[in-house]
Amino acid sequence: MAHAPIRILGIDPGLRNTGWGLIEALGTRLSFVDCGTVHSDGDLHLADRLRQLHEGIAAVIHALRPDEVAIEETFVNKDARATLKLGQARGVAMLAPAQAGLPVAEYAPNLVKKTIVGAGHAEKDQIHMMVRVLLPKADPRTTDAADALAIALTHAQHRGARALERDLLARVR
Amino acid sequence: MAHAPIRILGIDPGLRNTGWGLIEALGTRLSFVDCGTVHSDGDLHLADRLRQLHEGIAAVIHALRPDEVAIEETFVNKDARATLKLGQARGVAMLAPAQAGLPVAEYAPNLVKKTIVGAGHAEKDQIHMMVRVLLPKADPRTTDAADALAIALTHAQHRGARALERDLLARVR
Repeated sequence: MAHAPIRILGIDPGLRNTGWGLIEALGTRLSFVDCGTVHSDGDLHLADRLRQLHEGIAAVIHALRPDEVAIEETFVNKDARATLKLGQARGVAMLAPAQAGLPVAEYAPNLVKKTIVGAGHAEKDQIHMMVRVLLPKADPRTTDAADALAIALTHAQHRGARALERDLLARVR
Repeated sequence: MAHAPIRILGIDPGLRNTGWGLIEALGTRLSFVDCGTVHSDGDLHLADRLRQLHEGIAAVIHALRPDEVAIEETFVNKDARATLKLGQARGVAMLAPAQAGLPVAEYAPNLVKKTIVGAGHAEKDQIHMMVRVLLPKADPRTTDAADALAIALTHAQHRGARALERDLLARVR
């Protein structure tokens, strides 16, 4: 177990608003660092909106120097157009940490809910309440930023297991 | 009407294979320049695959200096997971030209078919045959590269109308 705190950036991607939240994990101790939202201008062409999102996330990474990144593995089943839009935003949001050489972990929404609230079908409100309980100093002003903090908290909980799995796989191969 | 040829890059995005094709348009005269496919390594994490696609497209743009870029406005209705994957690839494929300051036009698959073959429900084979007729020097080795050339040809056909529309809108506003 490392003795320096690990800085974890959670990202909740969306074409209009991409939430982000940075926490520090030292063993089981978790603390809030910062959070916010990157917006894209709906009047611009899609390619320019994607450039805005990418620039915003890249700027957060450059300024806050996370060690690891976690992103929600979202689907929008009801509408192919919405799913494609989300995919595009998610693509450029994942690209920025990959370009910075950071590992990017993905978590299904149900795992985020289960980790934070203890139930896979928790409501958004319950998640946001638990984010405030777990990170008392956090005061996310948008639901996207609160969701991003929930994803970062989920990674803090599961990253040990992921690292162990990676080590075991490396020995087996 | 400009007297220098316009270099048009068509992109057919996909997570595993992203096709690209560059043509030159001088008035109604169209000529083939180059085409190919950018691959991503399926063994890597998604974020690293997106980085590979972005690097590949950015390298093509840097080497071939297109003036304008066209991309297919694809949907995959049957499967949200496939649509999300495609969206992610499409997002990073559109980001690269936007970062280079190039305009990126989007075309629905039916418009590509209608423009190239004359029917909105043409088969892939018919499109590829017409690409070879319109660009005799092109010998795309993958269907993705042939599709990308079809998208570039579609933009060559419609860019005049798009520019006119832009001018008219600018006057009205």
